[in-house]
Amino acid sequence: MAANRILADHGVLDGYGHVSARHDRDPNRYLLSRSLAPALVTISDIMEYDLDSNPVDAQERTLYVERFIHGEIYKVRPDVQAVVHHHSPAVIPFSVSTVPLRPLYHMAAFLWEGVPVFEIRDVAGMTDMLVRNPALGRALAQTLGSKAAALMRGHGAVVVSSSVSGVVGRSIYLQLNAHLQAQAIALGGPVTYLDPEEGGRVDVGGYQRAWELWKRKTTAQ
Amino acid sequence: MAANRILADHGVLDGYGHVSARHDRDPNRYLLSRSLAPALVTISDIMEYDLDSNPVDAQERTLYVERFIHGEIYKVRPDVQAVVHHHSPAVIPFSVSTVPLRPLYHMAAFLWEGVPVFEIRDVAGMTDMLVRNPALGRALAQTLGSKAAALMRGHGAVVVSSSVSGVVGRSIYLQLNAHLQAQAIALGGPVTYLDPEEGGRVDVGGYQRAWELWKRKTTAQ
Amino acid sequence: MAANRILADHGVLDGYGHVSARHDRDPNRYLLSRSLAPALVTISDIMEYDLDSNPVDAQERTLYVERFIHGEIYKVRPDVQAVVHHHSPAVIPFSVSTVPLRPLYHMAAFLWEGVPVFEIRDVAGMTDMLVRNPALGRALAQTLGSKAAALMRGHGAVVVSSSVSGVVGRSIYLQLNAHLQAQAIALGGPVTYLDPEEGGRVDVGGYQRAWELWKRKTTAQ
Amino acid sequence: MAANRILADHGVLDGYGHVSARHDRDPNRYLLSRSLAPALVTISDIMEYDLDSNPVDAQERTLYVERFIHGEIYKVRPDVQAVVHHHSPAVIPFSVSTVPLRPLYHMAAFLWEGVPVFEIRDVAGMTDMLVRNPALGRALAQTLGSKAAALMRGHGAVVVSSSVSGVVGRSIYLQLNAHLQAQAIALGGPVTYLDPEEGGRVDVGGYQRAWELWKRKTTAQ
Repeated sequence: MAANRILADHGVLDGYGHVSARHDRDPNRYLLSRSLAPALVTISDIMEYDLDSNPVDAQERTLYVERFIHGEIYKVRPDVQAVVHHHSPAVIPFSVSTVPLRPLYHMAAFLWEGVPVFEIRDVAGMTDMLVRNPALGRALAQTLGSKAAALMRGHGAVVVSSSVSGVVGRSIYLQLNAHLQAQAIALGGPVTYLDPEEGGRVDVGGYQRAWELWKRKTTAQ
Repeated sequence: MAANRILADHGVLDGYGHVSARHDRDPNRYLLSRSLAPALVTISDIMEYDLDSNPVDAQERTLYVERFIHGEIYKVRPDVQAVVHHHSPAVIPFSVSTVPLRPLYHMAAFLWEGVPVFEIRDVAGMTDMLVRNPALGRALAQTLGSKAAALMRGHGAVVVSSSVSGVVGRSIYLQLNAHLQAQAIALGGPVTYLDPEEGGRVDVGGYQRAWELWKRKTTAQ
Repeated sequence: MAANRILADHGVLDGYGHVSARHDRDPNRYLLSRSLAPALVTISDIMEYDLDSNPVDAQERTLYVERFIHGEIYKVRPDVQAVVHHHSPAVIPFSVSTVPLRPLYHMAAFLWEGVPVFEIRDVAGMTDMLVRNPALGRALAQTLGSKAAALMRGHGAVVVSSSVSGVVGRSIYLQLNAHLQAQAIALGGPVTYLDPEEGGRVDVGGYQRAWELWKRKTTAQ
Repeated sequence: MAANRILADHGVLDGYGHVSARHDRDPNRYLLSRSLAPALVTISDIMEYDLDSNPVDAQERTLYVERFIHGEIYKVRPDVQAVVHHHSPAVIPFSVSTVPLRPLYHMAAFLWEGVPVFEIRDVAGMTDMLVRNPALGRALAQTLGSKAAALMRGHGAVVVSSSVSGVVGRSIYLQLNAHLQAQAIALGGPVTYLDPEEGGRVDVGGYQRAWELWKRKTTAQ
């Protein structure tokens, strides 16, 4: 999956995080790598899961502990075809702040419905902060609701889209918007955010123009 | 065009943005790539446009939606030979802030007349934020006036110059000045900007010394 | 030692700093390179020291002046198998600030007991700031106490772990947490830190998943 | 000269700036490249100048306009064997701020005597900001006094040392200290700077350990 390597190249994924896609012929299945650093994933590492996040054919491979993030979102969001969970450094500060992440950049207009923060303490008290069971996955999917992305306090984010290129582009521009917003706040004056109506009108076409570049760059390495 | 690749190397252009040049024999024509990520542009992608931004020979190629930025500026600014539209991350925060971008660095002295911000809402209300018709292009050209650069709120910037090396250098140093100004503000004390008279005296010679380096680096990759 | 090169790749180590490991068969010995920039260390540069930081077989090689950091920590911390001393730029600001470095990111949960700051002036008054004798090493080890890391004012940090992959991962995520905390503070609102109980529950498994990636990347260069 | 390339690799020098060294057999001469981007300088570009900054044998080569920085400093500072003039982005903000650059990091202890700012307006009113004649060079040398570095308002810095490796190391750590100080200030609490007495005691040995690494890295490219 090119998506893993593109996101690693952009610093969205480091040694952790994962990208999944809904099965293109069976909407009740999704595809996700075995437990591995994203940049190392190859085609033979991809596994098939049902929406309860049970592997169809595990073959003694180690599974991502947090695979429930993916399955529980696919269950309640039929529009979603791809999911990324990542630890992008630019978004973490907003996950631990009372200052909400809001879109100010047209390429991040998909955030116009807002970016909720998932606080695992509200759901399960003291934990190791991982979404390690179906109940936590469901709670995260509920926080996400109909939106394009949610932050996870002190942990990372989850981003969804109707395509793999879309979820990759959204992950990159979520990160960039967070960076830009932090810089705009630091200038000291009030910040002009996108109007929700503007947000709804922007159509980036699944980031296809950039996707061609990202794939080319990743292959060339 | 080396300009596309140099600006991509400097992070001024990502998967989006575009560089144009006025035709060297016909001032009523300009050259601009077909719709493509700038780093991928080769000589065969360059198209010729009239100043109404109609392609002279389209050959079914996809056009940049925002080509009107270029045509409308060439119409009213006979001194301009090259135009860049970009989304440089360092300048976006100033496009959504009440804090004006101002030159404090001698290599960015070309900003001494000020850097206006184009607010598309003032011209057309709620849009998808793209300069997708001649009227919006004219409004942007009007905001730019006689200046070297204008910001576009929540979107990016447009930079003009009397040469391609000049517009590339100005794009790079606009970005650097934005970065330096943000850092100077963050230190907390008052900031000393260039005096307009200093600004008018600085002559960087089209950034020729740096241009040789940038071209060399880009070719060597 | 891959650890030297991985930490150099991540910008934790520059031309200075050092990584040591307790001898795997003799707990009263430790292994540390001769005095050399970390990125240049090869297997033949590794020397063996006793816990008083005397080389077992010096062979006229130059020793790191600050080797006492390692020996004195191994003496009082039998749980520690690896030590890094580094000058990571992200942590230095916290070493000279009254704002304490605190974990807000789950991968840095190992900091849950706090991150003390070693002020060499309190121990020895005016010095050249280097831990250049056993007494200074003991004082630093005392500041560290039972914790995973300590900062050294205006100088750097020391990080310990029960394994080499652990000390490398902790160095990288100490740096990242410092960076994230600085950004979260800059947003202006209150910051939610990890609850110590969460900190105690997180188990990153010696950063093994990331370690595989880091080693692969370093070898591929 | 490796120094040019090392400083370009570290982002201290971009397309501009220059490094000189006093002639090792004639203290009334110094060596400096013809006008060229530092990263492109090769041995055949090096020219010899007298201390009035007249070239010994110009051969129709273009000279750096600001060569007087070097000559006038060598005249009044017999202890200085190497000079760098650079535009390091990290130091520019301090050159336009009322907040003084001060050493907080032991590798930048050489700044313990303070870092004066050269305001060309005080000397010559409105100019193009370049040190383009002997009088401006003398004024800058006077601002520098006995110190290791001076900032030039809205322009850059000049750094001096008793060796080439020293001036390269000082340039790199001047930049790093500026970066660290900006971050420490942003944390919001008071900042602990080096005590001048500590500053005077630190001896980095001409940055020899790092110099070996920097040279190796630059050659390997």
